[in-house]
Amino acid sequence: MRVEVVAVGTELLLGQIADTNSQWIGEQLAAHGIPSYFHQHVGDNHERIVLALRTALARGDAVIACGGLGPTQDDITRAAIAEVMNVPLERHEELVESIRAAFASRGRTMPENNLLQADVPRGASIIPQVRGTAPGLICPLGEKVVYAVPGVPYEMTEMFERAILPDLVERERRAGRQAVIRSRVVRTWGASESALAEALSGRIEELGGDERVTLAFLASGIEGIKVRVTARGDDAAHAERLLAEEETHVRRVLGETLGDIVFGVDDETMEDAIAGRLRGRGWTLAVAESVTGGLIASRLVNVAGASEWFRGGVVSYASEVKFDLLDVPRGPVVSAEAAEAMARGVRRVIGADVGLAVTGVAGPDEQDGQRPGTVFVGVDLRGVTSHAALRLPGDRPRVRAYGAISALDVLRRAIDATESNA
Amino acid sequence: MRVEVVAVGTELLLGQIADTNSQWIGEQLAAHGIPSYFHQHVGDNHERIVLALRTALARGDAVIACGGLGPTQDDITRAAIAEVMNVPLERHEELVESIRAAFASRGRTMPENNLLQADVPRGASIIPQVRGTAPGLICPLGEKVVYAVPGVPYEMTEMFERAILPDLVERERRAGRQAVIRSRVVRTWGASESALAEALSGRIEELGGDERVTLAFLASGIEGIKVRVTARGDDAAHAERLLAEEETHVRRVLGETLGDIVFGVDDETMEDAIAGRLRGRGWTLAVAESVTGGLIASRLVNVAGASEWFRGGVVSYASEVKFDLLDVPRGPVVSAEAAEAMARGVRRVIGADVGLAVTGVAGPDEQDGQRPGTVFVGVDLRGVTSHAALRLPGDRPRVRAYGAISALDVLRRAIDATESNA
Repeated sequence: MRVEVVAVGTELLLGQIADTNSQWIGEQLAAHGIPSYFHQHVGDNHERIVLALRTALARGDAVIACGGLGPTQDDITRAAIAEVMNVPLERHEELVESIRAAFASRGRTMPENNLLQADVPRGASIIPQVRGTAPGLICPLGEKVVYAVPGVPYEMTEMFERAILPDLVERERRAGRQAVIRSRVVRTWGASESALAEALSGRIEELGGDERVTLAFLASGIEGIKVRVTARGDDAAHAERLLAEEETHVRRVLGETLGDIVFGVDDETMEDAIAGRLRGRGWTLAVAESVTGGLIASRLVNVAGASEWFRGGVVSYASEVKFDLLDVPRGPVVSAEAAEAMARGVRRVIGADVGLAVTGVAGPDEQDGQRPGTVFVGVDLRGVTSHAALRLPGDRPRVRAYGAISALDVLRRAIDATESNA
Repeated sequence: MRVEVVAVGTELLLGQIADTNSQWIGEQLAAHGIPSYFHQHVGDNHERIVLALRTALARGDAVIACGGLGPTQDDITRAAIAEVMNVPLERHEELVESIRAAFASRGRTMPENNLLQADVPRGASIIPQVRGTAPGLICPLGEKVVYAVPGVPYEMTEMFERAILPDLVERERRAGRQAVIRSRVVRTWGASESALAEALSGRIEELGGDERVTLAFLASGIEGIKVRVTARGDDAAHAERLLAEEETHVRRVLGETLGDIVFGVDDETMEDAIAGRLRGRGWTLAVAESVTGGLIASRLVNVAGASEWFRGGVVSYASEVKFDLLDVPRGPVVSAEAAEAMARGVRRVIGADVGLAVTGVAGPDEQDGQRPGTVFVGVDLRGVTSHAALRLPGDRPRVRAYGAISALDVLRRAIDATESNA
């Protein structure tokens, strides 16, 4: 079953809302091993919805049409599907009653145009609504099928899980395809996408045409590069085993070629990696930020339970704040010495086991003779200080964002080093 | 020119990332009056990219293909376009040099696979990169055209504005469609979308079928609600005049019905509003953050030239940091008294004219008997303190993000009030 999502709504084309529905459905289909090769967005226009549906049916087996099922003049998905099926729309009296009842139960009178929602293409079956008023539809076209669901995510997700996914899984079963898909994302920081691709090119070639296990790269902006491992097994246990084996393999290859660049899997962020390390040792943390201006602290605070290990920080943007509050020696403030002094100072002022500090130049202008993108990170681990000097690309917001995650990565490696030195 | 966006990337189909590119491009096209009737998502598969491009060219005049231009084995948009054009790919020596130079300038050696990015379909022209390594392409197909841009939003938006939009506008001009469109976004904070719609419903009805001036609402998440004013004039001066008149009208209606909710236009952020007010008065600012954990400071630092008026701040996450460093009286730290004490304390510790402080509960648990979403903002304007108590919706990250912009809005109104009291 090749499934195409057709999201209906002029607001999608105009960019007034984001299409979170296609993304969510894509995730669900992938998790169940149902292939989906295309999505479309189309506006509230009869001819164009018809064209989008015909295009999708020509290159796939099932279409999920989201949106355009409401009660206004804009809501014309029902009529477009009827045209594609070459059947008339028929008003269902049972639906009329249930829509009237839904309004009555909220003590409201029903505007007449709501009855449009009781129109159903002949031959289609109904997915009853449980969260709103517009019912969904299952519309057979020979061996193919068009599902129609409301565009409201809260209504769509419920109908998808209750009615569409079971129907698709049953169709897959009848077609004899029962593979189970599992995937995991390995998250890295500190290597370029092309370096990762080169490191893993041998493995990708080895896997070759084998559809059981595949590797892919996802650049996620300032959050590093992800390696996605996908495994297709005969059952859940088989898929999990293939996935675990491949993850181990990927981690070993990356470790051997590019060093300690893996900081987490799936939804784990760099701050989660820091939180785990601090919690494990019972250490507390304080941060001093100049160029990142609070970004590091705000990332750390986003971890639930941060108060266990995060004490707070100082945003020492003006140089005098560095000198007066953090006891940084007067002199150039964009330097390794200043970064280490800031880490020592904030550890003392805030009172913590670990101090992390960042100073640098975000641009557009130079500072202390240093070019934009120059960043120094200082670490004070219970009295032992160290630093790292970085050159970061991009404009002002990017230097700051890269600076924040880079500094956390420097701290991650510094903490790990205390372990291996011990 | 009917323009279709084709976003390339298996990660879009699998729902691993959201397609923000189509949304952004849709918004830009709409603002310039260029029709766009369809979007597609397609995975990293040669045959299917070819099919998506052919589908788009059959029902439109121009295609913007986003993504698949990088250096890895996955990046096959160039080859797919060459097939659709029925021409070979040719390696451009100039591009080879510029890609090598980009790596050299960062002191890194270039993995060989990066040279894929120097392959260009015969007959296509190049959009030089200024923010990354993969160049964009302009590929003519008779009267039609395929543009190719990288999927990285930061690179895509720059290329779209510099090269694609001017090319589309020029094609529109040659086709004799010369209405000049201008649009402006009026940015508000503190009123719901339905309240804005109600306030402006009379005006929208008045404008009615007149296509010269239109109003639309854009919800932009934590950055408030935007009112987009679009004017279509016979020439630039005419469009600008219609736009200015309508903006004045909108501001007057909103001011009369909803108060001082407009904080800027177009790209002006809440922190820009603060920067302008502080700069105008020659005042400096310090911030103390608990629940927002550095978010406010990091927003302020993003304003170029922030060092003129932003001194720094304290992230007083642990209660002891509030008591010991900021002299907050021991007691409940989620309270109006604590917020005012933090504002006074940070103004003294950092040394500034104005202190701004936030304390509150992000959740998921209660604190000091206060529910998640409870936030107190304290302001100390050269010794005169005040506070605001807020109830914010959403989960932990949203409470923090709403807290940051709300606090800046409280400061904006407090500064304006000193003026009107004087």
